[in-house]
Amino acid sequence: MNVLLVLAHPERHSLNRALVDIATRELTSLGHEVQLSDLYRMGWKATVDQADFPHSATDPLNVATASAQAYGAGQLTEDVKAEQEKLRWADTVIFQFPLWWFSAPAILKGWIERVFSAGFAYGTGKSYGDGCMKGKRAMLSVTIGGTEHDYSARGICGPIEDLLFPLTHGTLFYTGFATLPSFLVYSADRLEERGEGFSDLVDRYRERLATLETTAPIPFRSAASGDYAPKTRELRPGLETPNTDGFKLHLKTTS
Amino acid sequence: MNVLLVLAHPERHSLNRALVDIATRELTSLGHEVQLSDLYRMGWKATVDQADFPHSATDPLNVATASAQAYGAGQLTEDVKAEQEKLRWADTVIFQFPLWWFSAPAILKGWIERVFSAGFAYGTGKSYGDGCMKGKRAMLSVTIGGTEHDYSARGICGPIEDLLFPLTHGTLFYTGFATLPSFLVYSADRLEERGEGFSDLVDRYRERLATLETTAPIPFRSAASGDYAPKTRELRPGLETPNTDGFKLHLKTTS
Repeated sequence: MNVLLVLAHPERHSLNRALVDIATRELTSLGHEVQLSDLYRMGWKATVDQADFPHSATDPLNVATASAQAYGAGQLTEDVKAEQEKLRWADTVIFQFPLWWFSAPAILKGWIERVFSAGFAYGTGKSYGDGCMKGKRAMLSVTIGGTEHDYSARGICGPIEDLLFPLTHGTLFYTGFATLPSFLVYSADRLEERGEGFSDLVDRYRERLATLETTAPIPFRSAASGDYAPKTRELRPGLETPNTDGFKLHLKTTS
Repeated sequence: MNVLLVLAHPERHSLNRALVDIATRELTSLGHEVQLSDLYRMGWKATVDQADFPHSATDPLNVATASAQAYGAGQLTEDVKAEQEKLRWADTVIFQFPLWWFSAPAILKGWIERVFSAGFAYGTGKSYGDGCMKGKRAMLSVTIGGTEHDYSARGICGPIEDLLFPLTHGTLFYTGFATLPSFLVYSADRLEERGEGFSDLVDRYRERLATLETTAPIPFRSAASGDYAPKTRELRPGLETPNTDGFKLHLKTTS
């Protein structure tokens, strides 16, 4: 299969870069094709603005409308078109980034804002499991400064699955990707102290890479599942496991 | 009091800009001082990288370490220093932005990554209610394309309070701000259709602006409250209202 790696870290000698290198080697050795978007090295423009729509300005600028027009007319900027071409090519996308302020680095957020334009990634009337990216898989691979306790079900930072929900559900599943459970590296600055050394980590990651095609996605409920009422798009009553609210409502099974 | 407005929208004739103008007029008329950081108009550099630390490079670059060193030595870049000075000056900070992909625009995320440097905003051993910003208040003012149903407790996008948790809790409360309930404008592109016209919206916002000093903050549990176990920082058992999990665990009272 074709795998696109999207890397958002400024340092070449970082753990994030090392994980991208491991993925490239492992996936290639398994016979897959790999492309890399190294956002910092590409000097990726992180902010969406009028310059993104040179031939299809709306006045005043409405980003969604302008991006739909520019996409439809084939007039997005060349850097955005190149990334969209990689996404068309890819069967699976892996996002490699450090958790900064409990979400993706700005440069990656800006990649999403600019590349996931209306018409290309969303806006066809279908969403949440049935968007333009349907048939593709995606996975977040995230390095985290804090401990696993910090991000556990009762951890002080909040559960990691919930913190990543705007990406796993709102961005990836929304546009149709089957989102795999995230690959997480806690205490990323202190690998040796936490009992999992670098070679153990490599083994754990290689296992996830070898099973990209068979790992069950996060069981988000699709918009078309009938679980949401048609007009309000609120989850119908009684579908959740008792004692569950918050984001876990949107899983077909709960832990 | 002194109020800093941080605006993240590329269009001058946007609802976001209008809300900033309303806030400026209303707060000034109430006798407060106002400063504005209009990130797009400032050409704000959204990505943190080696250029942020010209005199205190770490090799390899570790952003937290390099930012702590640069802050301690007074060698952050001038644009970052200017924003930190505004934050020192401010009693209250209002962040005005459109919800893009269920979080803040990249340019605002990049403002946080660069301005909230180690030593200045965090990293003193105190966090979650007791960081460097203690004594200040903050509020998100967010325009949202979807409907209120979409973001309700059972809405298909997830509850808005949960989606904003990485900002309200992980960024603002973490660094010591008292975070006020967010000011939310749903169906922002279709104000007239949803029964709240622009003048109703202005009235609703002016009410929030007039009560900035007295509105009760979101009742997040502080790290020093004793509610979290000392070593694991996991919430002690039995403190939550029955039927609550997810981010609501971290509220002292639940709705």
